[in-house]
Amino acid sequence: MKLLKEKIIKEGRVTGEEILKVDSFLNHQIDPLLLNEIGKEFQKRFSNVKVTKILTIEASGIAIAAIAGLHFNVPVVFAKKVASKNLDKETYKTQVYSFTKGKTYDIQVSKRYLNSEDYILILDDFLANGRASIGLIELVKQANATLAGVGIVIEKGFQEGGEILRNNNVNLQSLTVVNKFKNGEITFKN
Amino acid sequence: MKLLKEKIIKEGRVTGEEILKVDSFLNHQIDPLLLNEIGKEFQKRFSNVKVTKILTIEASGIAIAAIAGLHFNVPVVFAKKVASKNLDKETYKTQVYSFTKGKTYDIQVSKRYLNSEDYILILDDFLANGRASIGLIELVKQANATLAGVGIVIEKGFQEGGEILRNNNVNLQSLTVVNKFKNGEITFKN
Repeated sequence: MKLLKEKIIKEGRVTGEEILKVDSFLNHQIDPLLLNEIGKEFQKRFSNVKVTKILTIEASGIAIAAIAGLHFNVPVVFAKKVASKNLDKETYKTQVYSFTKGKTYDIQVSKRYLNSEDYILILDDFLANGRASIGLIELVKQANATLAGVGIVIEKGFQEGGEILRNNNVNLQSLTVVNKFKNGEITFKN
Repeated sequence: MKLLKEKIIKEGRVTGEEILKVDSFLNHQIDPLLLNEIGKEFQKRFSNVKVTKILTIEASGIAIAAIAGLHFNVPVVFAKKVASKNLDKETYKTQVYSFTKGKTYDIQVSKRYLNSEDYILILDDFLANGRASIGLIELVKQANATLAGVGIVIEKGFQEGGEILRNNNVNLQSLTVVNKFKNGEITFKN
Protein backbone atom coordinates (compact mmCIF):
# COMPACT_ATOMS: atom_id res chain seq x y z
CA MET A 1 0.00 0.00 0.00
CA LYS A 2 1.95 2.93 -1.40
CA LEU A 3 0.33 5.79 0.58
CA LEU A 4 0.95 3.97 3.85
CA LYS A 5 4.58 3.17 3.00
CA GLU A 6 5.21 6.83 2.16
CA LYS A 7 3.68 7.91 5.47
CA ILE A 8 5.80 5.39 7.41
CA ILE A 9 8.97 6.57 5.66
CA LYS A 10 8.08 10.24 6.21
CA GLU A 11 6.86 10.14 9.81
CA GLY A 12 8.02 6.86 11.34
CA ARG A 13 10.66 7.21 14.05
CA VAL A 14 13.11 4.37 14.51
CA THR A 15 14.90 3.46 17.73
CA GLY A 16 17.59 0.79 17.51
CA GLU A 17 16.98 -2.13 15.15
CA GLU A 18 13.47 -3.09 16.23
CA ILE A 19 11.33 -0.17 17.44
CA LEU A 20 9.22 1.86 15.02
CA LYS A 21 7.05 4.64 16.37
CA VAL A 22 4.15 5.74 14.19
CA ASP A 23 2.27 7.68 16.81
CA SER A 24 1.89 10.76 14.60
CA PHE A 25 -0.72 8.99 12.45
CA LEU A 26 -1.61 5.52 13.74
CA ASN A 27 -1.69 4.99 17.49
CA HIS A 28 -1.63 8.22 19.49
CA GLN A 29 -2.41 10.90 16.97
CA ILE A 30 -4.57 9.48 14.17
CA ASP A 31 -4.84 10.53 10.53
CA PRO A 32 -8.49 9.73 9.76
CA LEU A 33 -8.11 10.09 5.99
CA LEU A 34 -5.21 7.63 5.92
CA LEU A 35 -7.23 5.26 8.11
CA ASN A 36 -10.07 5.58 5.62
CA GLU A 37 -7.74 4.42 2.82
CA ILE A 38 -6.52 1.61 5.07
CA GLY A 39 -10.14 0.56 5.69
CA LYS A 40 -10.82 0.49 1.96
CA GLU A 41 -7.69 -1.58 1.35
CA PHE A 42 -8.68 -4.15 4.00
CA GLN A 43 -12.13 -4.36 2.42
CA LYS A 44 -10.53 -5.04 -0.96
CA ARG A 45 -8.18 -7.67 0.41
CA PHE A 46 -10.92 -9.54 2.28
CA SER A 47 -13.64 -9.06 -0.34
CA ASN A 48 -13.56 -12.78 -1.21
CA VAL A 49 -14.34 -13.99 2.33
CA LYS A 50 -17.47 -13.68 4.45
CA VAL A 51 -17.14 -11.18 7.31
CA THR A 52 -19.99 -10.52 9.76
CA LYS A 53 -17.98 -8.78 12.45
CA ILE A 54 -14.63 -7.07 13.01
CA LEU A 55 -12.74 -7.80 16.23
CA THR A 56 -9.86 -5.74 17.60
CA ILE A 57 -8.27 -4.91 20.93
CA GLU A 58 -8.10 -1.65 22.84
CA ALA A 59 -6.68 0.86 22.48
CA SER A 60 -4.72 1.32 19.28
CA GLY A 61 -6.76 -1.10 17.17
CA ILE A 62 -10.03 0.73 17.74
CA ALA A 63 -9.69 3.64 15.31
CA ILE A 64 -8.49 1.33 12.52
CA ALA A 65 -11.30 -1.16 13.11
CA ALA A 66 -14.04 1.47 13.50
CA ILE A 67 -13.22 3.18 10.21
CA ALA A 68 -12.76 -0.19 8.46
CA GLY A 69 -16.22 -1.08 9.80
CA LEU A 70 -17.69 1.68 7.62
CA HIS A 71 -16.32 -0.07 4.53
CA PHE A 72 -17.31 -3.61 5.56
CA ASN A 73 -20.66 -2.39 6.90
CA VAL A 74 -20.46 -4.74 9.90
CA PRO A 75 -20.33 -4.19 13.68
CA VAL A 76 -16.93 -3.79 15.33
CA VAL A 77 -16.10 -5.29 18.72
CA PHE A 78 -13.06 -4.37 20.76
CA ALA A 79 -11.69 -6.70 23.41
CA LYS A 80 -11.17 -4.99 26.76
CA LYS A 81 -7.93 -5.15 28.69
CA VAL A 82 -9.11 -3.72 31.99
CA ALA A 83 -11.97 -5.01 34.10
CA SER A 84 -14.74 -2.41 34.26
CA LYS A 85 -17.89 -2.38 36.37
CA ASN A 86 -19.77 -1.91 33.11
CA LEU A 87 -18.50 -5.10 31.47
CA ASP A 88 -20.90 -8.05 31.49
CA LYS A 89 -19.97 -10.89 33.84
CA GLU A 90 -20.26 -13.49 31.09
CA THR A 91 -17.18 -13.04 28.90
CA TYR A 92 -14.81 -14.92 26.66
CA LYS A 93 -11.43 -14.37 28.25
CA THR A 94 -7.77 -15.18 27.74
CA GLN A 95 -4.35 -13.88 28.70
CA VAL A 96 -1.91 -11.94 26.55
CA TYR A 97 1.69 -10.99 27.26
CA SER A 98 2.62 -7.51 26.06
CA PHE A 99 6.29 -6.87 25.32
CA THR A 100 5.54 -3.13 25.01
CA LYS A 101 3.95 -2.90 28.46
CA GLY A 102 6.15 -5.63 29.96
CA LYS A 103 3.29 -7.58 31.56
CA THR A 104 0.55 -10.16 31.11
CA TYR A 105 -3.06 -8.99 31.09
CA ASP A 106 -6.51 -10.44 30.56
CA ILE A 107 -8.45 -9.63 27.43
CA GLN A 108 -12.20 -10.07 27.45
CA VAL A 109 -15.23 -9.82 25.19
CA SER A 110 -18.81 -10.03 26.44
CA LYS A 111 -20.49 -13.26 25.28
CA ARG A 112 -23.29 -11.10 23.84
CA TYR A 113 -21.06 -9.85 21.04
CA LEU A 114 -19.38 -12.96 19.63
CA ASN A 115 -21.32 -16.02 18.65
CA SER A 116 -21.10 -19.22 16.67
CA GLU A 117 -22.72 -17.72 13.55
CA ASP A 118 -20.08 -14.99 13.27
CA TYR A 119 -17.32 -14.78 10.65
CA ILE A 120 -14.70 -12.71 12.41
CA LEU A 121 -12.07 -10.50 10.83
CA ILE A 122 -9.37 -9.49 13.32
CA LEU A 123 -7.73 -6.11 12.66
CA ASP A 124 -4.81 -4.53 14.49
CA ASP A 125 -2.13 -1.86 14.04
CA PHE A 126 1.00 -4.00 14.54
CA LEU A 127 1.96 -7.65 14.27
CA ALA A 128 5.24 -8.40 16.04
CA ASN A 129 5.45 -11.55 18.17
CA GLY A 130 1.77 -12.22 17.51
CA ARG A 131 0.59 -12.46 21.10
CA ALA A 132 -2.36 -10.08 20.71
CA SER A 133 -3.59 -11.74 17.50
CA ILE A 134 -3.24 -15.22 19.01
CA GLY A 135 -5.24 -14.03 22.05
CA LEU A 136 -7.99 -12.66 19.82
CA ILE A 137 -8.07 -15.90 17.79
CA GLU A 138 -8.50 -17.77 21.10
CA LEU A 139 -11.60 -15.63 21.87
CA VAL A 140 -12.99 -16.45 18.40
CA LYS A 141 -12.48 -20.18 19.17
CA GLN A 142 -14.14 -19.89 22.58
CA ALA A 143 -17.19 -18.38 20.84
CA ASN A 144 -17.21 -21.22 18.24
CA ALA A 145 -17.13 -18.49 15.61
CA THR A 146 -15.29 -18.73 12.28
CA LEU A 147 -12.06 -16.83 11.74
CA ALA A 148 -12.29 -14.98 8.41
CA GLY A 149 -8.76 -13.62 8.62
CA VAL A 150 -6.33 -11.24 10.26
CA GLY A 151 -5.56 -7.80 8.81
CA ILE A 152 -2.51 -5.89 10.02
CA VAL A 153 -1.33 -2.38 9.17
CA ILE A 154 2.38 -2.93 9.92
CA GLU A 155 3.95 -6.37 10.29
CA LYS A 156 7.43 -6.58 11.71
CA GLY A 157 8.85 -9.12 9.29
CA PHE A 158 11.77 -9.90 11.61
CA GLN A 159 9.59 -11.13 14.49
CA GLU A 160 7.77 -14.44 14.65
CA GLY A 161 4.09 -13.39 14.64
CA GLY A 162 3.60 -13.50 10.87
CA GLU A 163 5.24 -16.91 10.56
CA ILE A 164 3.16 -18.39 13.40
CA LEU A 165 -0.10 -17.21 11.85
CA ARG A 166 0.82 -18.30 8.30
CA ASN A 167 1.95 -21.72 9.58
CA ASN A 168 -1.49 -22.06 11.17
CA ASN A 169 -3.19 -21.36 7.84
CA VAL A 170 -4.57 -18.02 9.00
CA ASN A 171 -5.60 -15.75 6.10
CA LEU A 172 -3.16 -13.00 7.11
CA GLN A 173 -3.06 -9.75 5.14
CA SER A 174 -0.40 -7.28 6.21
CA LEU A 175 -0.59 -3.94 4.41
CA THR A 176 3.14 -3.43 4.95
CA VAL A 177 5.94 -5.67 6.20
CA VAL A 178 9.01 -3.88 7.56
CA ASN A 179 12.52 -5.29 7.82
CA LYS A 180 14.85 -4.88 10.76
CA PHE A 181 16.04 -1.26 10.85
CA LYS A 182 19.68 -0.87 9.82
CA ASN A 183 21.23 2.55 10.51
CA GLY A 184 17.78 3.94 11.35
CA GLU A 185 16.52 3.20 7.85
CA ILE A 186 13.03 1.83 7.16
CA THR A 187 12.79 -0.75 4.35
CA PHE A 188 9.92 -3.02 3.32
CA LYS A 189 9.79 -6.69 2.36
CA ASN A 190 9.08 -6.98 -1.38
CA MET B 1 -30.60 13.39 17.45
CA LYS B 2 -33.51 11.10 16.64
CA LEU B 3 -31.60 8.07 15.32
CA LEU B 4 -29.42 8.02 18.43
CA LYS B 5 -32.37 8.34 20.82
CA GLU B 6 -34.14 5.46 19.07
CA LYS B 7 -31.02 3.31 19.37
CA ILE B 8 -30.64 4.13 23.07
CA ILE B 9 -34.31 3.28 23.73
CA LYS B 10 -34.05 0.06 21.72
CA GLU B 11 -30.70 -1.29 22.93
CA GLY B 12 -29.80 0.60 26.12
CA ARG B 13 -29.84 -1.52 29.28
CA VAL B 14 -30.66 0.23 32.54
CA THR B 15 -29.51 -0.86 36.00
CA GLY B 16 -31.00 1.00 38.95
CA GLU B 17 -31.59 4.74 38.58
CA GLU B 18 -28.21 5.78 37.22
CA ILE B 19 -26.49 3.15 35.06
CA LEU B 20 -27.09 2.97 31.32
CA LYS B 21 -25.23 0.36 29.28
CA VAL B 22 -24.93 1.04 25.58
CA ASP B 23 -22.22 -1.47 24.86
CA SER B 24 -24.08 -3.02 21.92
CA PHE B 25 -23.36 0.04 19.73
CA LEU B 26 -21.14 2.61 21.47
CA ASN B 27 -18.42 1.35 23.76
CA HIS B 28 -17.75 -2.38 23.43
CA GLN B 29 -19.49 -3.36 20.23
CA ILE B 30 -19.60 -0.38 17.83
CA ASP B 31 -22.13 0.44 15.13
CA PRO B 32 -19.94 2.24 12.56
CA LEU B 33 -22.87 3.60 10.54
CA LEU B 34 -24.44 5.16 13.64
CA LEU B 35 -21.04 6.60 14.58
CA ASN B 36 -20.84 8.05 11.09
CA GLU B 37 -24.14 9.88 11.65
CA ILE B 38 -22.88 11.01 15.07
CA GLY B 39 -19.72 12.37 13.44
CA LYS B 40 -21.79 14.30 10.89
CA GLU B 41 -23.97 15.73 13.66
CA PHE B 42 -20.94 16.91 15.65
CA GLN B 43 -19.57 18.53 12.50
CA LYS B 44 -22.88 20.37 12.01
CA ARG B 45 -23.02 21.51 15.63
CA PHE B 46 -19.45 22.81 15.66
CA SER B 47 -19.44 24.17 12.10
CA ASN B 48 -19.34 27.75 13.41
CA VAL B 49 -16.11 27.31 15.41
CA LYS B 50 -12.55 26.70 14.31
CA VAL B 51 -11.31 23.15 14.98
CA THR B 52 -7.79 22.05 14.08
CA LYS B 53 -7.69 18.87 16.15
CA ILE B 54 -9.99 16.45 17.98
CA LEU B 55 -8.95 15.21 21.42
CA THR B 56 -10.43 12.20 23.19
CA ILE B 57 -9.43 9.60 25.76
CA GLU B 58 -8.92 5.88 25.43
CA ALA B 59 -10.68 3.59 25.05
CA SER B 60 -14.35 4.30 24.38
CA GLY B 61 -13.86 7.79 22.93
CA ILE B 62 -11.56 6.60 20.16
CA ALA B 63 -14.06 5.15 17.68
CA ILE B 64 -16.34 8.20 18.00
CA ALA B 65 -13.47 10.65 17.57
CA ALA B 66 -11.82 8.75 14.69
CA ILE B 67 -14.99 8.65 12.61
CA ALA B 68 -15.83 12.27 13.50
CA GLY B 69 -12.32 13.13 12.31
CA LEU B 70 -13.35 12.04 8.80
CA HIS B 71 -16.06 14.72 8.80
CA PHE B 72 -13.94 17.49 10.36
CA ASN B 73 -10.94 16.49 8.25
CA VAL B 74 -8.53 17.09 11.15
CA PRO B 75 -6.15 14.83 13.10
CA VAL B 76 -7.47 13.02 16.16
CA VAL B 77 -5.40 12.57 19.33
CA PHE B 78 -6.30 10.21 22.13
CA ALA B 79 -4.99 10.71 25.65
CA LYS B 80 -3.40 7.57 27.08
CA LYS B 81 -4.30 6.15 30.45
CA VAL B 82 -1.51 3.63 30.81
CA ALA B 83 2.19 4.32 30.66
CA SER B 84 3.70 2.59 27.63
CA LYS B 85 7.32 2.20 26.63
CA ASN B 86 6.33 3.71 23.30
CA LEU B 87 4.97 6.98 24.73
CA ASP B 88 7.26 10.02 24.46
CA LYS B 89 8.82 11.17 27.73
CA GLU B 90 7.65 14.75 27.21
CA THR B 91 3.93 14.75 27.87
CA TYR B 92 1.10 16.91 29.13
CA LYS B 93 -0.28 15.01 32.09
CA THR B 94 -3.01 15.21 34.71
CA GLN B 95 -5.00 12.92 36.99
CA VAL B 96 -8.58 11.76 36.55
CA TYR B 97 -10.80 9.87 38.97
CA SER B 98 -12.99 7.25 37.32
CA PHE B 99 -16.19 6.27 39.13
CA THR B 100 -16.64 3.36 36.71
CA LYS B 101 -13.22 1.88 37.43
CA GLY B 102 -13.15 3.09 41.04
CA LYS B 103 -9.66 4.60 40.86
CA THR B 104 -7.53 7.61 39.96
CA TYR B 105 -5.27 7.37 36.93
CA ASP B 106 -2.92 9.56 34.94
CA ILE B 107 -3.89 10.71 31.48
CA GLN B 108 -1.17 11.84 29.10
CA VAL B 109 -0.65 13.29 25.66
CA SER B 110 2.74 13.63 23.98
CA LYS B 111 3.77 17.29 23.69
CA ARG B 112 4.29 16.66 19.97
CA TYR B 113 0.56 16.43 19.35
CA LEU B 114 -0.95 19.42 21.15
CA ASN B 115 0.36 22.92 20.71
CA SER B 116 -0.50 26.57 21.23
CA GLU B 117 -1.80 27.03 17.67
CA ASP B 118 -4.39 24.29 18.06
CA TYR B 119 -8.16 24.75 18.39
CA ILE B 120 -9.21 21.61 20.21
CA LEU B 121 -12.57 19.90 20.10
CA ILE B 122 -12.95 17.32 22.88
CA LEU B 123 -15.24 14.37 22.07
CA ASP B 124 -16.36 11.56 24.37
CA ASP B 125 -19.08 8.94 24.71
CA PHE B 126 -20.49 9.89 28.14
CA LEU B 127 -20.59 12.97 30.35
CA ALA B 128 -21.52 12.12 33.94
CA ASN B 129 -19.56 13.80 36.73
CA GLY B 130 -17.30 15.46 34.15
CA ARG B 131 -13.97 14.23 35.45
CA ALA B 132 -12.66 12.96 32.10
CA SER B 133 -13.67 16.15 30.23
CA ILE B 134 -12.16 18.37 32.93
CA GLY B 135 -8.93 16.35 32.72
CA LEU B 136 -8.81 16.75 28.94
CA ILE B 137 -9.48 20.50 29.25
CA GLU B 138 -6.55 20.67 31.68
CA LEU B 139 -4.29 19.11 28.99
CA VAL B 140 -5.52 21.71 26.47
CA LYS B 141 -4.59 24.45 28.97
CA GLN B 142 -1.16 22.97 29.62
CA ALA B 143 -0.53 23.10 25.86
CA ASN B 144 -1.71 26.75 25.70
CA ALA B 145 -4.14 25.60 23.02
CA THR B 146 -7.66 26.99 22.53
CA LEU B 147 -10.68 24.94 23.56
CA ALA B 148 -13.16 24.93 20.68
CA GLY B 149 -15.78 22.94 22.58
CA VAL B 150 -16.81 19.63 24.07
CA GLY B 151 -19.05 17.17 22.19
CA ILE B 152 -20.74 14.35 24.08
CA VAL B 153 -22.86 11.48 22.77
CA ILE B 154 -24.83 10.86 26.00
CA GLU B 155 -24.96 13.31 28.89
CA LYS B 156 -26.39 12.12 32.18
CA GLY B 157 -28.51 15.15 32.97
CA PHE B 158 -28.80 14.16 36.62
CA GLN B 159 -25.05 14.29 37.32
CA GLU B 160 -23.02 17.46 37.70
CA GLY B 161 -20.65 17.31 34.69
CA GLY B 162 -22.87 19.25 32.29
CA GLU B 163 -23.52 22.02 34.82
CA ILE B 164 -19.84 22.37 35.68
CA LEU B 165 -18.85 22.75 32.02
CA ARG B 166 -21.70 25.17 31.17
CA ASN B 167 -20.91 27.29 34.23
CA ASN B 168 -17.36 27.55 32.94
CA ASN B 169 -18.61 28.82 29.57
CA VAL B 170 -17.52 25.70 27.73
CA ASN B 171 -19.25 25.29 24.35
CA LEU B 172 -20.83 21.96 25.31
CA GLN B 173 -22.91 20.06 22.77
CA SER B 174 -24.54 16.87 24.04
CA LEU B 175 -26.33 14.89 21.35
CA THR B 176 -28.66 13.43 23.97
CA VAL B 177 -29.31 14.21 27.64
CA VAL B 178 -30.87 11.41 29.67
CA ASN B 179 -32.86 11.79 32.88
CA LYS B 180 -32.54 9.57 35.94
CA PHE B 181 -34.07 6.18 35.13
CA LYS B 182 -37.40 5.56 36.87
CA ASN B 183 -38.70 1.98 36.71
CA GLY B 184 -36.01 1.11 34.19
CA GLU B 185 -37.38 3.63 31.68
CA ILE B 186 -35.13 5.84 29.55
CA THR B 187 -36.36 9.43 29.01
CA PHE B 188 -34.60 12.45 27.53
CA LYS B 189 -34.41 16.08 28.60
CA ASN B 190 -36.43 18.20 26.13
